[in-house]
Order: sequence, then structure tokens, then C-alpha cells
Amino acid sequence: MKKIMNEPGDIVEEMLEGIVKSYPELVHRVEDSRVIAKNQLNEQVGLVSGGGSGHEPAHAGFVGDGMLSAAVLGDVFTSPTPDQIQLAIKEADQGQGVLLIIKNYTGDILNFEMAKELAAMDEIDVEEVVVDDDIAVENSTYTAGKRGVAGTILVHKILGDAAKNGASLTQLKELGERVVAATKTIGVALRAATVPEVGKPGFDLNEDEIEYGVGIHGEPGYRREKLQPSKLLAKELVTKILSEYTEKPKEVGVLVNGMGGTPLMEQFVFMNDVLTLLNEEQVDVTFHKVGDLMTSLDMQGLSLTMVDLTETTWKEALTSHVETIAW
Amino acid sequence: MKKIMNEPGDIVEEMLEGIVKSYPELVHRVEDSRVIAKNQLNEQVGLVSGGGSGHEPAHAGFVGDGMLSAAVLGDVFTSPTPDQIQLAIKEADQGQGVLLIIKNYTGDILNFEMAKELAAMDEIDVEEVVVDDDIAVENSTYTAGKRGVAGTILVHKILGDAAKNGASLTQLKELGERVVAATKTIGVALRAATVPEVGKPGFDLNEDEIEYGVGIHGEPGYRREKLQPSKLLAKELVTKILSEYTEKPKEVGVLVNGMGGTPLMEQFVFMNDVLTLLNEEQVDVTFHKVGDLMTSLDMQGLSLTMVDLTETTWKEALTSHVETIAW
Repeated sequence: MKKIMNEPGDIVEEMLEGIVKSYPELVHRVEDSRVIAKNQLNEQVGLVSGGGSGHEPAHAGFVGDGMLSAAVLGDVFTSPTPDQIQLAIKEADQGQGVLLIIKNYTGDILNFEMAKELAAMDEIDVEEVVVDDDIAVENSTYTAGKRGVAGTILVHKILGDAAKNGASLTQLKELGERVVAATKTIGVALRAATVPEVGKPGFDLNEDEIEYGVGIHGEPGYRREKLQPSKLLAKELVTKILSEYTEKPKEVGVLVNGMGGTPLMEQFVFMNDVLTLLNEEQVDVTFHKVGDLMTSLDMQGLSLTMVDLTETTWKEALTSHVETIAW
Repeated sequence: MKKIMNEPGDIVEEMLEGIVKSYPELVHRVEDSRVIAKNQLNEQVGLVSGGGSGHEPAHAGFVGDGMLSAAVLGDVFTSPTPDQIQLAIKEADQGQGVLLIIKNYTGDILNFEMAKELAAMDEIDVEEVVVDDDIAVENSTYTAGKRGVAGTILVHKILGDAAKNGASLTQLKELGERVVAATKTIGVALRAATVPEVGKPGFDLNEDEIEYGVGIHGEPGYRREKLQPSKLLAKELVTKILSEYTEKPKEVGVLVNGMGGTPLMEQFVFMNDVLTLLNEEQVDVTFHKVGDLMTSLDMQGLSLTMVDLTETTWKEALTSHVETIAW
């Protein structure tokens, strides 16, 4: 393993310092905490997300005007603790309550819900939206039900826009649940991620092999086979996602998300194949995004996310201006 | 080699299609060309850059309001041809002339200058700025003199702002030369890039080895040794860059640029170490940027760029709003 770092155990702390020192005009660190918060919060419902580190730019990169109020960071691939989440909630609250956007992992659910109880003692109204957009497998390592993956960033964006425009806590929870239901993702891996403190890849793939349906912590997917051309890969992922909708969407937003070790060149080649297929399927794509938004350290691979935009105003929410490090 | 692609020979064409289909609100492809241009050009001097593909998001990702008018793409690590560059110049010209921003490689210089002569026949005023920010080595593969690397993106940004604010072709050339003189970069590689049509890494590094001063096409650097902690790596690069300035800068902008296969987590850890050192050196850092801007396919590594901002107004130019895919 070669990584640019100092002591593996210090990597999250040093990354966090790197983030806040690099973007002091946008974010700051809540004192003595693992919380990165927006400078000068708006008078609105606060939005808090977070989770294990190793998914950068998620979630700290999406803190800022029009997206999250604060992000809370755990150790690499490890849920943040309830007291840290509580600090994020306190920081984000401007008197109108706080919505937690939680990726569906057992540890995250447990700790965010414990923090919600702690916040109740501080008399802060807290609601939650659980994101489980990964349709690859039903249950998985660390997860009861489906996993929360790259679609989470689209939830940040749509809810961030609504919160900025004055939506109430109840409205945001309801909107969040509708966005989650409309959002579906599958990922593939060509090479596993290496956790700094472990020092070797989380799983082995042969030199010509790919794993379909892999999670963002290297959780198993549903099939391994020889790497296929991008067109066939796109065909499988597009078909699987479309078949998950009760009714075929007329209009979608598409996110091609790099896992950390995949060049943008390949992500755009894949997006081109996805768009050709959706065009053949007569599905209108009105929002596109390509890049590393929800990574898995240095994993080579990507994920495809679709959000059903039919008869919604979410396209406007997805394209509105934000001030963040990484959107 | 595992890459998400179809035929290796089609990768640039398919990437190009992926880019313009993903961001139709920002850019379009000039018909039958390898040119990606801004929609609705402003009345200003046109800015054209480009070069071999494989450095994404450079340069197409920096086309848009406040940065480039057009980018022209060659094959992977191969200069675009003069006729393609000529098309980019024609597209960018709004009657006030066009400035070419060229990275210093023999093939690029030759082809951009030939395109300049072709444009003269079209009666378009064309000037050029050659970027040679890489201080690692004096001459290199494909290069007489120093190489042009990640500092090029800061040149795009500062000149893009000036052009938008009405600077003339002569003023832009003069400003560009001053920015280039103030901009210095060194890169390191932990793992070489793999060119799709070649199928194996461009050079070999041992499992614990790093190469200092490597170029963005895998050109040799100045030393190989065992990978050091980020702090020592930062110490070497910061010291080398500062020693290149005749007078130590009072104020700098810093770019930490990922080479394509390096997680953002490591880039932020490294930035943290760089900022600690510059603080000790009493160099004020007033502009920061971290991320993959000028990559080398899937190369693992990063580069450090500093631009001397002392007694300039370039900080404002670096932080002004743009509408691009990747800034």
C-alpha cells in the first residue's frame, strides 16, 4: 500500500484540518469536534449529514449555502459517535429544527437516532430521512435493508434547495422520503479500496474481473465476471435500475459517480453509453452530473444513479446555485 | 489493465460525446471537430487552450463563462492537430482576437503555432502564452525547457477573469507571461498512468517507492526513493518551490492537484502539511484549491503549485465566479 499520509490513525484529523484550512470562506470546524459547518447559517431548517470518512468529498464537500448546514465525520468507514452528531445538530439548529440525512447502515442509524434523543433533551426538533438507494442487494454487511450510496448527494441537493427556500421540517422529511423512493443506484468495482489502517485491499479481484453491485465500503455485490466493454456494463446497470421502477420514468436525472480511483475519462465514456441507452428507451434525461462525489477511498469503479424527475420540480432544485467545496 | 471503455481507439471520441451530452447548458462540440466550446460567447478576447487527452477535467472542464472560450483535444497524451486548433480559434474569435494558452511541449508548441499561422490567413489576431510551471527538471521527454503542468489551470482562471473584464489581447499576453513567471509546480508519482492503447503502466515503481518531479505523461523526475510521510514530502516540495523564487513571496495561492488515482482524503492531508510549513515560513496563503484538475489518467500521485500573489490583484481573479464543469 502506498498512501500520502502520516500516521494512519491521524488521517481523519489531518484531512479535516486540511479541509477547513483550505476553504475558510465556506466552512469551519466546530471547536474540539469532528463537525464541519457552514459559516453564517441561514434562518432555515438545518440539514445535517455525515458518516464514516473515506467517501470524500462526501459529506463535508457538500456543506454550504443551498446544501448541508453541517457534516459530521467518523473514522474511516466507521459511523460518527452520537455526541459528535449531537454537536452537529446544535450547530445547525437555527430555531426551526434539524433534518438528519442518514445513509442506511446499522451503525449510522443507531448513532444518529441516539443523537436525536440527546437533541430532544436540548429541546431541538429533529427529524430524519434514511437513504437506501442502492438496489444491488437487499441486505448486506452492516446493513438491514438496502445500502445508502451516491444517491444521497442528490438528496442533499434537492433538500438543500427546499430548506433554503423556507420548507418546514415536516415538509422536508416528506420531500426527502419521496426523493429517496425515486432514487436508485448500482455500483461496480474493478479494484477494492485500501483502508489506511488495514494496508491491503478489502477484497481481491482477478486482473480481468469486475464485481457488480459492490457497496461503498467494499461490501459484496451480486456477481463477478470478466470485465465487459462499457456499453455492456451500461446496459446491465441501466436495465437493472429501470426495472426497479413500478412505472418506467419519462424524465430522469443521471449521476455517474467515480469511486475515487477511476479517471474522469472513463466516467464520461460510461455516461455516453448510458445516455445512448436511455435515448433508445425514450427516457428523457434533463439533469446530468459526472464526477467523484461519493467515493470509497481509492476504489476503482463507478456507480450509476437515476432519480425519477417525472412530474416533479426537482430539476430546478438540482440545478440551482450553491456555494460548496465539491458540488 | 482494467478500464471502463469500449475500443481503446474510440476513448477520446466517446469521452468528448459524454462531456457535451452531460453539460449541454454550458458547452457544445464544434461540428465534426475535437473542439469543445462555450455556448453564447461573450464579446471579449477569446481564450483557447488544449492539448493531449488524458488530463481531464483539463481542459474541456474549464470552458465556460470567466475561463476558456474553447478547448481542443488531441488523442491521449498527443497534441491536437493544427487544423483542429484552427477550428477552436475560429470558434473563439469574436472580433477582438484570440489568446492561445499552451503547455510547453514540443508537439503542442509546433501545432499551436502552425494553427496561429493558419488563423492569420483568416485575418484573426492570435497571440500565445506558453506555460512552463514545472520546476522539477529543466528539459524532459517531449520538452525543450520546463514542462507545463497543473499551474496552467491557474493561468486559465486569472486570464479568464481578465478577458471577461475587457482586457485586450496585448494586455492578456502580458498578464499571462507575468502569471506564468509567478507560478511554480512539482509533482510526485506513487504509481504510473496506463495509456488505454498501451495497456500497461508507463513506468514501474517498486511497492514502497515514489518518484519526485514526475511529469503529467509519466516523464522522469529527479529522484526515486522510499515513500516518505506526507510531512516530509510536503517539506521537500515546499522548500524546492520557495527556493525557485528570487525573493520569498509574502502571499501565495496554493493548488494541491490530484493526478487521477489519489483520493481526496490524501490530498487534504498533504495540503494540511503544506499549510503548516508555509505558516512557519510566514508566507500568507490567501487562495487554496484542492482536487483533480490536471490529471494523468489513473496516475497515483499529486502536484503542488504555488502562485506568488504578492502585490497583485490575482486573488480576486482566482476567486471570481465562473460557470464551468470543473473549476
